[in-house]
Amino acid sequence: MTQPCGAILAIGDELAIGQSLDTNTRWIAEQLTARSLHIIEHTTLPDDQHAITDAILRLAQHADFIIITGGLGPTADDLTRQSLAEALSEPLVEDDRALAFLEDIERKRGRSLTPARRSQALRPASASIIDNPTGTAPGLRAVLTTTARVTHIFCLPGPPREMVPMFEGAVLPALPENPTHAIRTRILRCYGIPEADAAAALADLMRRDRNPLVGTTASNAIISIRIRYEGDPGAADSSLSETERQVRAAVGPYIFGAEDDTLPAVTLGALREAGDAMLVAESCTGGLTGAMLTEIPGSSDVFLGGWITYANEMKSAHLAVPAADLQSPDIGAVSAHTARNMARAALANAPDASRSFNRIHSVAITGIAGPSGGSDRKPVGTVFIAAATRDNNSGVLTDEVRHFLIAGDREDIRIRSATTAIGMTLHRFRNSSPETLLWQVAPPDRAEARA
Amino acid sequence: MTQPCGAILAIGDELAIGQSLDTNTRWIAEQLTARSLHIIEHTTLPDDQHAITDAILRLAQHADFIIITGGLGPTADDLTRQSLAEALSEPLVEDDRALAFLEDIERKRGRSLTPARRSQALRPASASIIDNPTGTAPGLRAVLTTTARVTHIFCLPGPPREMVPMFEGAVLPALPENPTHAIRTRILRCYGIPEADAAAALADLMRRDRNPLVGTTASNAIISIRIRYEGDPGAADSSLSETERQVRAAVGPYIFGAEDDTLPAVTLGALREAGDAMLVAESCTGGLTGAMLTEIPGSSDVFLGGWITYANEMKSAHLAVPAADLQSPDIGAVSAHTARNMARAALANAPDASRSFNRIHSVAITGIAGPSGGSDRKPVGTVFIAAATRDNNSGVLTDEVRHFLIAGDREDIRIRSATTAIGMTLHRFRNSSPETLLWQVAPPDRAEARA
Repeated sequence: MTQPCGAILAIGDELAIGQSLDTNTRWIAEQLTARSLHIIEHTTLPDDQHAITDAILRLAQHADFIIITGGLGPTADDLTRQSLAEALSEPLVEDDRALAFLEDIERKRGRSLTPARRSQALRPASASIIDNPTGTAPGLRAVLTTTARVTHIFCLPGPPREMVPMFEGAVLPALPENPTHAIRTRILRCYGIPEADAAAALADLMRRDRNPLVGTTASNAIISIRIRYEGDPGAADSSLSETERQVRAAVGPYIFGAEDDTLPAVTLGALREAGDAMLVAESCTGGLTGAMLTEIPGSSDVFLGGWITYANEMKSAHLAVPAADLQSPDIGAVSAHTARNMARAALANAPDASRSFNRIHSVAITGIAGPSGGSDRKPVGTVFIAAATRDNNSGVLTDEVRHFLIAGDREDIRIRSATTAIGMTLHRFRNSSPETLLWQVAPPDRAEARA
Repeated sequence: MTQPCGAILAIGDELAIGQSLDTNTRWIAEQLTARSLHIIEHTTLPDDQHAITDAILRLAQHADFIIITGGLGPTADDLTRQSLAEALSEPLVEDDRALAFLEDIERKRGRSLTPARRSQALRPASASIIDNPTGTAPGLRAVLTTTARVTHIFCLPGPPREMVPMFEGAVLPALPENPTHAIRTRILRCYGIPEADAAAALADLMRRDRNPLVGTTASNAIISIRIRYEGDPGAADSSLSETERQVRAAVGPYIFGAEDDTLPAVTLGALREAGDAMLVAESCTGGLTGAMLTEIPGSSDVFLGGWITYANEMKSAHLAVPAADLQSPDIGAVSAHTARNMARAALANAPDASRSFNRIHSVAITGIAGPSGGSDRKPVGTVFIAAATRDNNSGVLTDEVRHFLIAGDREDIRIRSATTAIGMTLHRFRNSSPETLLWQVAPPDRAEARA
């Protein structure tokens, strides 16, 4: 038995001319892949009946199913219905149930059905209607038989809010099963290791003739390791687990989570469980670290807040950084010394109520995000990050400062700095802090004191 | 003369299975549309030589040019070179200049050229190389002549960082001209008006049979008004300018910029020009407003910094918000009163050096971003934003607080709150502040005092 295969067709001038980004196709592709179905092609076409009809007939030669999005609206440039009828060589007929549905919608709005809206009740004679629970455009389902094969065709409206529930409710259950062939993936998320070092550590696990396949992708300081199994469904779990064990043996200290875990969510979760809290002191990131942490629902029971000390005067006025340090050519705002002062001042300025947490963590970021402001000694991308912890039970204060040279443009440097700050916090919390993290250029400088 | 038309082909398993979102195709489509070139199709294919060759041959029947991205890497699953050679019925040959380029890259890294990397110097015999200034994969350019037409084919690497400069440098200048038919667009950006109100104010300007066409799109509190002219190139400018004048007459007070202008950049620019500076005090946005402002290069001469007072104790400790207010069921953290206190305290805590600016602006945000924390009286989306200004010359302090009920999920509410805070700052600065802004649910509460 060969693998069932499908094609995805997106319709619309706004997509063809690049005005709108099509996110439906990728989402549908993910759904099909998760079901072990093979995708032979995605195609996007303008609102052109002839081109759409041709594409349906062409794809039907190779695909067991075609999923079409868009072109089901009530206006003259919505041509999916007509194209499907042409491909099937059938007339369009009015569907009684679709008509009643459309009339009911208009009645509730106190209006009557216009001829344009009424056209949405049309379907090719042999097609059936797919109900649309969240919008007005009904979907269509048809079977096109050619000399090559029998192809199932599903037409769904373009707005994702309508398309997604219709796909899940009506298309997914109707797609072919693939009982003999499974594609399963697991993803592990790492912070702190360069992708090339991860690849070197994974070594033979990354060979392309291996099953499960192991691949890495890097995005803003996070390495995602994807383990992809393809084959007999019965062996999938044990095979994935064995490879996951080998991956963890190779790069374990850097792994912070799996699947959809994010570094901010995992960090906040770890601190919450320990009864800890955290503060930020941000210069070049300008609030981005706080924004990334507070993006996580429920962050308020761990994240207290912090200081955005973008201007030097803010560092002196609110984080006790001596103006003399900032003016000194040997120290300056972008320095290990200033980062440490900022992180310590954040702890010192923590509100009294923070004494009720077991520990308070602070992280301070100062750097040069560019595009200007760099020098030979401190090029753009130079970032110092200090992480400090006060143990409220023992009164012990510890901190560490790391010096980074972060790659990328202004936006990259800022996102990567904030990510690094959160990653440093998590590694310190876990007592798993590697001596060198991604983009770090000097050994960490660690200190301990009593509060 | 018919309009020159092209097709876009994106290659890669990671795109076909939905693992990665293809942003290249849309970007290329926008570039082609801006040049008045017609796009007949976008297609995405997996790494399958037979399918790629077939698609090239099929598209060449209908397209004057085909732009292909992806599949030019050094690994076994990069098959664009082979497919193009097969479509051209030509052998692959090694290009001397590409080989020297690749050898040079490896030499600088202290390595020698592997056979896999060396394969990137291959090109179909009649094709030529497109230099890649930012990566290793050279591009390809070829001409495919069929009975239907002569088709120019351009192959570019998949990473946008490499694709974009190669497209701009080598593809765009080689594309056909369209001297008799122009498509030109202008975009105006608005903050503060609901899209439906903008549409009502634009009225007949939005008729679909009009040229230039006027359309609106809304994204996170910003309404973009697109004016699209299609026709004789000679009449384009005057026609666009006349429609722009009419659009400005309809919704002028809400327009803050044009084309790629962003609200943070325009706001910072306006303040800079006036010798002003600004501070933020953020609760539910957690630093996002600061992050959006500091994303703009050069923000440091206007944006001083601020406070992330996510926890109530931070509001009391650092923004002088009385603990009694926070505990009072009639006031609370999410209230006009607290927002105003936060904005005033930010001004009061501005560093002494800020006296050298003409005016200091602060903006404070407190709200319920959800998903939990809402109540009948203060549902999720309830946000109070206070904007305050101290005139350092006159000593006059002014402020205003507005009450919003912002639509969307946690992420939407946060982004829209930060955008609203920046928009309020700009409208106040321009003395153009409308009584009601998008999502506002009560009249603004304004006050004035002497410092």
